[in-house]
Amino acid sequence: MSIRFYNARILPMRENMDIMEGELWTDRERISYIGPERKESAVPFEREVDLHGNLILPGFKNAHTHSAMTFLRSYADDLPLLDWLQKQVFPMEAKLTGEDIYLFSKLAILEYLSSGITSCFDMYFHPEVMARLAVDTGFRTVLLSGLSNFNFSLEEMREAYQKFNAYHPLVSYQLGFHAEYTTSKELLEGIARMAQEFKAPVFTHNSETKGEVDGCMERYGMTPTALMDSLGMLDYGGGGYHCVYMSDADLDIFKKRGMTVVTNPGSNTKLASGVPRTAEILKKGIPMAIGTDGAASNNCLDMFREMFLVTGLAKLREEDASVVSAEEVLKMACVNGARCMGLKDADCLSEGKLADLFVLDLHQPNMQPVNSIVKNIVYSGSKQNVALTMVNGKILYERGKYFIGESPEEIYEKANRRMQELKK
Amino acid sequence: MSIRFYNARILPMRENMDIMEGELWTDRERISYIGPERKESAVPFEREVDLHGNLILPGFKNAHTHSAMTFLRSYADDLPLLDWLQKQVFPMEAKLTGEDIYLFSKLAILEYLSSGITSCFDMYFHPEVMARLAVDTGFRTVLLSGLSNFNFSLEEMREAYQKFNAYHPLVSYQLGFHAEYTTSKELLEGIARMAQEFKAPVFTHNSETKGEVDGCMERYGMTPTALMDSLGMLDYGGGGYHCVYMSDADLDIFKKRGMTVVTNPGSNTKLASGVPRTAEILKKGIPMAIGTDGAASNNCLDMFREMFLVTGLAKLREEDASVVSAEEVLKMACVNGARCMGLKDADCLSEGKLADLFVLDLHQPNMQPVNSIVKNIVYSGSKQNVALTMVNGKILYERGKYFIGESPEEIYEKANRRMQELKK
Repeated sequence: MSIRFYNARILPMRENMDIMEGELWTDRERISYIGPERKESAVPFEREVDLHGNLILPGFKNAHTHSAMTFLRSYADDLPLLDWLQKQVFPMEAKLTGEDIYLFSKLAILEYLSSGITSCFDMYFHPEVMARLAVDTGFRTVLLSGLSNFNFSLEEMREAYQKFNAYHPLVSYQLGFHAEYTTSKELLEGIARMAQEFKAPVFTHNSETKGEVDGCMERYGMTPTALMDSLGMLDYGGGGYHCVYMSDADLDIFKKRGMTVVTNPGSNTKLASGVPRTAEILKKGIPMAIGTDGAASNNCLDMFREMFLVTGLAKLREEDASVVSAEEVLKMACVNGARCMGLKDADCLSEGKLADLFVLDLHQPNMQPVNSIVKNIVYSGSKQNVALTMVNGKILYERGKYFIGESPEEIYEKANRRMQELKK
Repeated sequence: MSIRFYNARILPMRENMDIMEGELWTDRERISYIGPERKESAVPFEREVDLHGNLILPGFKNAHTHSAMTFLRSYADDLPLLDWLQKQVFPMEAKLTGEDIYLFSKLAILEYLSSGITSCFDMYFHPEVMARLAVDTGFRTVLLSGLSNFNFSLEEMREAYQKFNAYHPLVSYQLGFHAEYTTSKELLEGIARMAQEFKAPVFTHNSETKGEVDGCMERYGMTPTALMDSLGMLDYGGGGYHCVYMSDADLDIFKKRGMTVVTNPGSNTKLASGVPRTAEILKKGIPMAIGTDGAASNNCLDMFREMFLVTGLAKLREEDASVVSAEEVLKMACVNGARCMGLKDADCLSEGKLADLFVLDLHQPNMQPVNSIVKNIVYSGSKQNVALTMVNGKILYERGKYFIGESPEEIYEKANRRMQELKK
């Protein structure tokens, strides 16, 4: 599969946010050419796409999600956090089978593709189901262990790590656990040993709420970040999801260990969890990436909404409209997400890199006039602007049509039918 | 022009948020039938549209905007508020001609239509231009006087009030002024006299920033709301835009005078102005409506983003995920906006009401599964879901195509060309 995109604007996101005009070619799963207009090609193109000046950029990376949780979208909202989690989410999740997870995660993949998202960092049960789904649909998926006291063993995590990192080019697996408050010290120590053994980063929900941090202080006399570091768990980096309540010392550990803060502003807003110290985190030079979290809390899987919230909430928090620029936010959504997820070949657009990208339609009123394309994307962009999404060199979405092996209507019908049964 | 929509879900928004299944017919500018499937019609339909179960709802009302300010979209962002206003916005606005306002407001109308917005409450210079544009495009527009020390006279406002309220069914005009801090006491007194004379409501930017309220306290020993009320300006109601820094006494005046709070969360977020007391305002029974403000500050004209922010920011402010329900927010965006703008025949869907409505595509991943359509709209909705927008019985937008008398490409080209000149 070799595709030529011409008459394009291209935002490669290598050293800067400069936009060039020209062409981008793909050859199987990789980018084979980026540069000025060029007509001769060694291989024949299977398709040539005139982009009419529209913009190619690296795909958004959804750096924290629970894909299967689409089944709880708008199922229980406008509720206090604990009621929501304990009375609504947990009992429903307990009913899910592997096939349910396949179905509802497929629904999430449709939504990712329509939002320009080309890969996700997915924490949920049944990683073997999600791995199969990634291959079936062509959607790049980084599986994350959500180990806790209530699910699987360290030995199973080790097996999954080895199995899914050798499974398929679209699939990888990272070490992690659900959260400090759901994971025993024994397990945490085991994870730390495994991180050392594999020289691997570790990821978890970290300091999402004040109550979570207070609980950890009571149990250990340390914050979750300090506890993990004290166990030697962060020697090879990793990341924290949410990171709303981080102390200066926590941030120093993140900086020292090369960790990424993965922010989830839509979820933190809707659940009233709080606003992270985004401006300070960036000033310290700690990389940030962006995740949608699951649809149960957000409720949509839309990187445009997240990007506006990352900068908007930081502006409100600091009472300063000048903090957290559009350029920084767009880099978080594309480049930093890839690096945090271990997708070093999907971070930017360059010859030899993976063809994980999307086309943004600039011929829409919300992208006009063209005073600044980058600012337009972050402050005014919308799913409406996503014209085409390509993963691993294959077009999986184009102008409302999906190419993932099953029609959206079939997926919706199955999802609604199954949801009726689950509600009983 | 008579149109039949069938196989529809309909959310009339009369007494409640119940959704029915059936048909909606239009006859010229009005709704002629809403009810179950019915095949015989007295008049022949010019078009019959199978909605495949998609949802018809009353159009969103953009209850506060400066349409022409699209020209400054992404022109000067990430700047402190005063730098932004004084160094970037004011000097550029001073260069605008009437034809510029026509052009850039037309661009805004494209964006409104793509977002399901069927009317706007527009405060800007040259109301005669905006009135002409409303008629040329078919877009319902409520003009608002932006009287201040720097533009026109009370006598001109009186003439405009009389002229534009008798101009065309798509156009009306309301009394108002820019803000207390830009308007002399003499003018404020004159506006109050005119409100009494016409028994008319009055609208203005009110308590957008803390500095604005502090300045008014210094000048008058009263808040902007108390000052207006003391002048007898609010005896026939009206509304305040932004209302971020409102005292209890201010809210009591709003309640007593039947005033509407028009909230602008996107703009308040991006300019770091603050978060209004939404949950408390609603609890007091004061109606709220929603505006996008201008594209210079927001930067997009997207009611879906605004709706999420209305409830999301209230949840963060109150540290309570249960405040400000999706139902309340959707009512603000449709019903309350119309009432505040004096569009009493465009507030809900009913036989005899104006056919100002839009069709929301539920066959999209972000609207699935269908656990709650109303919550899906507010928490997960996007412009991507707007399938068709009708104003005054005419389809002005359908699936990416606009029917306002000029092609989007021509408008974009003119807008970019003119912007290049303005930047010189």
